[in-house]
Amino acid sequence: MTAQASRSDHDPAIPDIRDIDAYMQRLGQGAREAATLMRRVDTAAKNAALLAMAEHLEQARSDVLAANARDLARERESGLEAALLDRLALDDRRLDAMIDGLVQVAALPDPVGEIDGLRSRPSGIQVGQMRVPLGVIGIIYESRPNVTLEAASLCLKSGNAAILRGGSEARDSNAAIAACIRAGLARAGLPESAVQVVATTDRNAVGRLISMPEYVDVIIPRGGKSLIERITREARVPVIKHLDGVCHVYIDAGADVDKALAIAVNAKTHRYGTCNTMETLLIDAPLAETLLPTLALAYGEHGVELRGCERTRAILGDIGVASEADWQTEYLAPVLAIRVVDGIDDAMAHIERYGSRHTDAIVTEHYGRARRFLAEVDSSSVMVNASTRFADGFEYGLGAEIGISTDRLHARGPVGLEGLTSRKYVVLGDGQVRR
Amino acid sequence: MTAQASRSDHDPAIPDIRDIDAYMQRLGQGAREAATLMRRVDTAAKNAALLAMAEHLEQARSDVLAANARDLARERESGLEAALLDRLALDDRRLDAMIDGLVQVAALPDPVGEIDGLRSRPSGIQVGQMRVPLGVIGIIYESRPNVTLEAASLCLKSGNAAILRGGSEARDSNAAIAACIRAGLARAGLPESAVQVVATTDRNAVGRLISMPEYVDVIIPRGGKSLIERITREARVPVIKHLDGVCHVYIDAGADVDKALAIAVNAKTHRYGTCNTMETLLIDAPLAETLLPTLALAYGEHGVELRGCERTRAILGDIGVASEADWQTEYLAPVLAIRVVDGIDDAMAHIERYGSRHTDAIVTEHYGRARRFLAEVDSSSVMVNASTRFADGFEYGLGAEIGISTDRLHARGPVGLEGLTSRKYVVLGDGQVRR
Repeated sequence: MTAQASRSDHDPAIPDIRDIDAYMQRLGQGAREAATLMRRVDTAAKNAALLAMAEHLEQARSDVLAANARDLARERESGLEAALLDRLALDDRRLDAMIDGLVQVAALPDPVGEIDGLRSRPSGIQVGQMRVPLGVIGIIYESRPNVTLEAASLCLKSGNAAILRGGSEARDSNAAIAACIRAGLARAGLPESAVQVVATTDRNAVGRLISMPEYVDVIIPRGGKSLIERITREARVPVIKHLDGVCHVYIDAGADVDKALAIAVNAKTHRYGTCNTMETLLIDAPLAETLLPTLALAYGEHGVELRGCERTRAILGDIGVASEADWQTEYLAPVLAIRVVDGIDDAMAHIERYGSRHTDAIVTEHYGRARRFLAEVDSSSVMVNASTRFADGFEYGLGAEIGISTDRLHARGPVGLEGLTSRKYVVLGDGQVRR
Repeated sequence: MTAQASRSDHDPAIPDIRDIDAYMQRLGQGAREAATLMRRVDTAAKNAALLAMAEHLEQARSDVLAANARDLARERESGLEAALLDRLALDDRRLDAMIDGLVQVAALPDPVGEIDGLRSRPSGIQVGQMRVPLGVIGIIYESRPNVTLEAASLCLKSGNAAILRGGSEARDSNAAIAACIRAGLARAGLPESAVQVVATTDRNAVGRLISMPEYVDVIIPRGGKSLIERITREARVPVIKHLDGVCHVYIDAGADVDKALAIAVNAKTHRYGTCNTMETLLIDAPLAETLLPTLALAYGEHGVELRGCERTRAILGDIGVASEADWQTEYLAPVLAIRVVDGIDDAMAHIERYGSRHTDAIVTEHYGRARRFLAEVDSSSVMVNASTRFADGFEYGLGAEIGISTDRLHARGPVGLEGLTSRKYVVLGDGQVRR
């Protein structure tokens, strides 16, 4: 069958998703038009849409759960691993959290239109910077269907149009959630193309989405490192990305020992699978002899496997060897690499060489070293006397988070509504001209 | 001759710039190492380097002018056009301005280390954002040798390492300026690789510079649209770019006529070759009949050629036709396109469709329409009752400007020292852990 015949067979009211290029172009055009409208939409209309989505989701609980059950059955059959099935699964508790999330985003302050630093200039003009939406945001993610709603709500509240591309595992769940999003937009009088969920699982759709600079202003990939690396390499539009989190806690000789123990244990054992979990503990030599055995006991109680440098092993004895590869590994598991270092310079050199510029903490009561660590460690979050687990949009007070950026430009660290905006200059005059 | 033989022929003390890949990699490595050091350098050392560069340039005046004379002679011979020869030419007045620029950048506040919005969170931690350098900045520019010094000074003051690639026309001038930069860095005890000027005119050097994400964090191209488009297309690192400036002034029916005349004339005639010059005048229908003839007289006195829409031509008679292409053209010349529009929505639709999102102004005394224009026009600078010519780092109070960004991410509009930094999160705790 030729492409021509294929197209003419098709009901023109339903987008023909077999022609991926044409389909993605149509999504892009729709998003670009919607972005122009969304820029002008007031806070009340955006909040009304979010609350209407919450209501529609409440009413569609059984549809969404039935769709999710179809996804789960199909993926279980095709052998998806248990951890991914768990991420894919929805239940009433998860739906409650999704509905609650919409209500919370509606309650957040609207960043759009905020003007900072308006100042008078000698010429008589006043100059300031106004927060404005980025435009069209493409989000590419994997199995968790709740990301569909989170991403939709954050893009909407920040005045952007969104094109969402979820994992093929969640296709039925995402379609059911997309119906609630569309219904909510429509009820608030907003264009349905303000949030579009890509309705094909064809992998070429991703390739198109990341190479339409005329329609898409930024791509945010959420998923494993290989997905993000591929997208960064191939994208023809800017990418806000989150690579791995090889996070460190450095216990300085000037540390309060109780704080050091609490932080080092919490940063590793509070949750293992998160990007802000400590993966390498650096301990200053003067404290190593006394502190490492206590720490080893605590980690032992949590079933954390320790791998050490030579000096660590000389103190702790029977633990594994930390190799070069260990220092660079995001375990996401109850495994911890430990290195004894000689002071803050040695610690910072290790972090510079092996870290991933995500989140790093120092434990110390020494003012000068705390100050140096804050200034000199080049990570998206740098902490003094706090657990790396705090690197999180909610803990930072952003209200919500679309991801954590390990980039250097635009947004670093947790990205909330503000990270989905940028600032344009506004100039207020009274007839001024350049002399 | 094989590459091997070529390399062994070469004095190892002088970088072998015939092997472009190896040469650019060495520059990249040097810059990355310098960036780590520069992050930690205090304001006094950076200022000392800037002032030492100014002194060295003062002492090297005759060397720099002699080098420039060689560039001019060679390029005149090979037929470089007069406008480019003018940009290339240095004289004592231009050297004065360059020296003065260094002193001014030294006097600017250092953005690095500034902490914004430090707030206490319910968990007991305090969270804020600290300005930090971007890292390694690659700057690619054309014939003007003074850009070498401007770019060096701004990257240095903002704590970044820089790799500068100027035009081949200015190669001797840039080499002479680079010697002053190196001497200034050395005198202040800073690494010479903090600012490196690419010493080859081989075009492949640019290709390498924009595809080394391991060494270069951001590329800033300064030059014509075709250069910038090519770099944006091919770069494998983020680009802060400035495409064209198709700037509009919209004279609203609610305008004060005197302000409208002053702004419309100034925005076009103050300077023709700048990106913030008005290229299209939009005039609200109720004012067109009375205002256009007065404006045409004023433009006539300045020798500005007018091209109009049908309604404009019906009023002004004997002027050229503005075609579709005119609405999209950055003339950079004494030519102006004029369109009569029906109110603010029509004006904003024109700007949305044909503008380049650079700088657009409304002239009005109507509060509601001024407010709408500011909020809804999606350009890097949006103005009320002021000439578009104010879109400039100095006029905005940034102290200096490395360029004007027409991007949506990171920096929009004039980019000063702040635009060469980003913000990381800092967390101050007292032993807090996640519950």
